Amino acid sequence: MFFVKENGRTIPVADKVFALSGGAKAAIAKKGKDAVVNATVGALLDDNGDLVVMSSVTEAIRSLTPADYAEYAPITGTPAFKEAVVKALFGNYGPSGHVRLCVTPGGTGSLTSVIQNYSNYGDSVLTHDWCWANYKNIAISQGRKFKTFRFFNEDGVFDAEDLEKQLGELAAVQDQVVLLINTPAHNPTGYSLSLDDWDKMIAVLNRATCNVVLFLDIAYIDYAGEEDEVRAFIPKLDGLKDHVLTIFGYSASKTLTAYGMRLGAIVCMSKNEEVVEEFRRAAEYAARSTWSNCNRSAMVTMGKIYSDPELRAKVDEERKIYRDMLLERGRIFEKTLNDNGVKCVPFTAGFFVTIACDNPDEIGKKLEEQDIFCLALAKGIRVSIASVSKEKCVKCAEAIAALLK
Amino acid sequence: MFFVKENGRTIPVADKVFALSGGAKAAIAKKGKDAVVNATVGALLDDNGDLVVMSSVTEAIRSLTPADYAEYAPITGTPAFKEAVVKALFGNYGPSGHVRLCVTPGGTGSLTSVIQNYSNYGDSVLTHDWCWANYKNIAISQGRKFKTFRFFNEDGVFDAEDLEKQLGELAAVQDQVVLLINTPAHNPTGYSLSLDDWDKMIAVLNRATCNVVLFLDIAYIDYAGEEDEVRAFIPKLDGLKDHVLTIFGYSASKTLTAYGMRLGAIVCMSKNEEVVEEFRRAAEYAARSTWSNCNRSAMVTMGKIYSDPELRAKVDEERKIYRDMLLERGRIFEKTLNDNGVKCVPFTAGFFVTIACDNPDEIGKKLEEQDIFCLALAKGIRVSIASVSKEKCVKCAEAIAALLK
Repeated sequence: MFFVKENGRTIPVADKVFALSGGAKAAIAKKGKDAVVNATVGALLDDNGDLVVMSSVTEAIRSLTPADYAEYAPITGTPAFKEAVVKALFGNYGPSGHVRLCVTPGGTGSLTSVIQNYSNYGDSVLTHDWCWANYKNIAISQGRKFKTFRFFNEDGVFDAEDLEKQLGELAAVQDQVVLLINTPAHNPTGYSLSLDDWDKMIAVLNRATCNVVLFLDIAYIDYAGEEDEVRAFIPKLDGLKDHVLTIFGYSASKTLTAYGMRLGAIVCMSKNEEVVEEFRRAAEYAARSTWSNCNRSAMVTMGKIYSDPELRAKVDEERKIYRDMLLERGRIFEKTLNDNGVKCVPFTAGFFVTIACDNPDEIGKKLEEQDIFCLALAKGIRVSIASVSKEKCVKCAEAIAALLK
Repeated sequence: MFFVKENGRTIPVADKVFALSGGAKAAIAKKGKDAVVNATVGALLDDNGDLVVMSSVTEAIRSLTPADYAEYAPITGTPAFKEAVVKALFGNYGPSGHVRLCVTPGGTGSLTSVIQNYSNYGDSVLTHDWCWANYKNIAISQGRKFKTFRFFNEDGVFDAEDLEKQLGELAAVQDQVVLLINTPAHNPTGYSLSLDDWDKMIAVLNRATCNVVLFLDIAYIDYAGEEDEVRAFIPKLDGLKDHVLTIFGYSASKTLTAYGMRLGAIVCMSKNEEVVEEFRRAAEYAARSTWSNCNRSAMVTMGKIYSDPELRAKVDEERKIYRDMLLERGRIFEKTLNDNGVKCVPFTAGFFVTIACDNPDEIGKKLEEQDIFCLALAKGIRVSIASVSKEKCVKCAEAIAALLK
């Protein structure tokens, strides 16, 4: 390094996903898109490989005025946006406590905010061992350490015992732990915590001997299944004791399939109004001191959709079509894999499926030789079923099974 | 605090500017907008108090496609956006070295990026004592300390001696110093470093016994005066020795009067290509680990404007009208003040003028009693001439002079 200070970060020469997706694009240019499976893209594509754009969202965008683009938004977000997020997040399980929220640049911003505000420098942030690789980068970039618990035990069941063990180790040296849990439709496995898993996790957190900030990354909630079913865990949060604080990371970019808008929110819920007020102050301060306010036109779009029952119904209907498409891809991928004698990491729904293996880089290379592009993680292969058709899901699952058997 | 960890930050209960601007709005609601001077707003308003929106920018926005909103942008920005920033920033003083850049959420994001990547935890970031208050918040939020040099000496001249002294003190304990310089049209004073000031500063930096990362916050460059004149310092950067690295913070939101779009860039220039490549890697990593990519529709808008000579000419012409309006307000404000026997902190151009005084909070309160709303800083009163008409500039200057004489 000449001038750059790494500060404990490991800055790669090039991003792995970017290089891989470049390879897929080159193959498509050479052999045509039917011949290539590009299962690297973290966005929802239709069966032709085109980005899903909801016409109802486009309709809302078309109604924006010049001032909706020009004017600074309030740091925590426009009032209509905030109302929209509460509706979108809680659905029919309206919050049982006080709520405050702050707009963030996508889900990433909500992670930066919670780590900056709710952990001490040098403390460890805890999450499941299967996780979005960026969790670690975000924690390390804020000068925090990174610790994981085993997400699934040998029987493929949510490992509440290991969560308790790792949390206990941190409780011995920290007064508070930020715990990042990505559910439903976890990235990269697609797993959604069951209500039984939730009971176990809540019992563990209630027994913790330090404060716990339970950060629920629900970025994929609108693609995880039926609206009420995927939110059925919300009432269970009422069972958390006072030393546990619930904060949600919400991604409007995903809900509206408008990734380029960078629209997310960090949402705090507590029975104690002082706790949510403290959150509001801290979230506002962190925003102002890191990226300031967010994209106003995106907030206005979201506000319009959720305050207009007719438009909202159109968006919900349109999204349901794509969600069902995605759920069907997931079922077919998993069935093909199982029929060929291979199991994936526990999968429920969502953008990704992951298959554990000992030599992911090698498997990844062999798949590339067949023009199948998937991301090799440290302990397995991640397949973005969000970005390939049903037919290609079958092809991809068969190829992986053949290599792993 | 219940759960929030301050980590050396001082998180206020409410933002001062927000409370003040609330007071101004309440006064307007009661007494009508003609009776109130709201000189608190950090955006360009026309003489009627309406936000300046450039019709040429609106034209570019109207031509966006749904995919321009929906698709993720590359982390460092779209190619057309990057080309646009190089044109917009360097104008007729095209870069003399290698350049790399990364899109950021406004100017704030560029500050976060440079501090995260170019200083060590616990090191001090150096800037002028008159500065945007948020500089300190951004540095402290990244776990850095904050040090200032005296911007002007007793004669009201750029204080290169004190810069050298403070830099020397840091060089004794740090291997590298990030130096934040906001010019031209500095916030909050409106001062632009003269070419003579530049010579002095470059001599100081070249004599430094540690590395210096010279971060030039040029957010207001397009409102500071004639295009070539305000960029005439750029060739002087060639005189910097190898231990000094130049990084620019650019605000497209301001150039296009589209603040709500949150569009900025961090730009690195060096004769050494390895140095700018290292920058690219680090800027990309910091972005991905803090807010990820940025608002794509804003990038496409900027790209369209700067790749279409006709549209660009329209934008430039339209902006010139508003820039001239702003420059005229500044001249009249300063003249009125001087005619009434009071001097401001050295002022050249820009959104703000500042008047030093011993009791800013008291002066601010007395101005409020006259329905004149200005921000009280630690050492003076900041007047946003960007947000009030010529007539109100006169009224405001007279009122301040009357209180200070």
